[in-house]
Amino acid sequence: MFSSRPAVHPVEAPPMTEAAENPPRLRMKDIQGMPGTCGGLALRLLQFAFAASALCVMATTNDFTSVTAFCYLVAAVSLQCLWSLSLAIVDVYALLVMRCLRNRRIACFFTLGDGITSTFTFAGACSAAGITVLIGNDLGLCSENHCGSFETATAMAFLSWFAVSISFMLNFWLLAAR
Amino acid sequence: MFSSRPAVHPVEAPPMTEAAENPPRLRMKDIQGMPGTCGGLALRLLQFAFAASALCVMATTNDFTSVTAFCYLVAAVSLQCLWSLSLAIVDVYALLVMRCLRNRRIACFFTLGDGITSTFTFAGACSAAGITVLIGNDLGLCSENHCGSFETATAMAFLSWFAVSISFMLNFWLLAAR
Repeated sequence: MFSSRPAVHPVEAPPMTEAAENPPRLRMKDIQGMPGTCGGLALRLLQFAFAASALCVMATTNDFTSVTAFCYLVAAVSLQCLWSLSLAIVDVYALLVMRCLRNRRIACFFTLGDGITSTFTFAGACSAAGITVLIGNDLGLCSENHCGSFETATAMAFLSWFAVSISFMLNFWLLAAR
Repeated sequence: MFSSRPAVHPVEAPPMTEAAENPPRLRMKDIQGMPGTCGGLALRLLQFAFAASALCVMATTNDFTSVTAFCYLVAAVSLQCLWSLSLAIVDVYALLVMRCLRNRRIACFFTLGDGITSTFTFAGACSAAGITVLIGNDLGLCSENHCGSFETATAMAFLSWFAVSISFMLNFWLLAAR
């Protein structure tokens, strides 16, 4: 079959050769975790689950509003929840209709959104961690505060940030490798 | 000269054509801010200057050791100082001997280092910001603490992080675009 092709369709030969010369690009598009793949959907669901857990745990403490950093964490993980849930729905749609989400504009939009939300979530997690360590270790006031809840919410926010960072890296790589 | 070349050295013609077909890669290598450019050196010096300022300002307060987050900030900006100063020296060397620092291994090493140090610096800045806002706004204890110094050190750490992020993005882009 292949040996006879160039003779029958001589015009089609160059594109085939060109495609064979660039195996990294073809392989790149198959990486799980990028938009429109099952891995990408799993990452979005993980981000949403961790961010929602952080939000719920922090909301169960009645005194988080007295500390600005905890309020900021709640705002950041709420934004993260909305962003990750929206992109999870987009991923489900892309998987159902077998649509490819790897054009330049979409990659640029996803990279920007992931970069902004991951920065906010990480900032919220770090400031909440600073306060939690201050209350628990430096001042030793855990008996009067919900240290356990603060620690759990902070840990969940860090896990959510970690999952968003992977999405961000993959989208940024996709954008740069085009 | 050029018109006679393909006839004299027919083997050299394909590489010249291939290079002319890929203008984005050639243009990419000229972006200021990448390793081995004047912009890259300026970014490294900025990172070092801001991190060193944060370190000095925090060190002038005698009570920063009582808060874990401030100690962490001091450790993070110290690491940032060392990393940025080392890479500034490498950039100066590369500029003096006109050496190109854009191979895959170097880009990978710089990207990893920038990613790790920028994450540490940002985490330190955010946790210190959380504590500073807690002391200043939530508890109103600025009269007993060095709020001004804490705020200045935090701001310097954020500026240093911002400069490192630009280096990280450019290195990551260079790594992915190869």
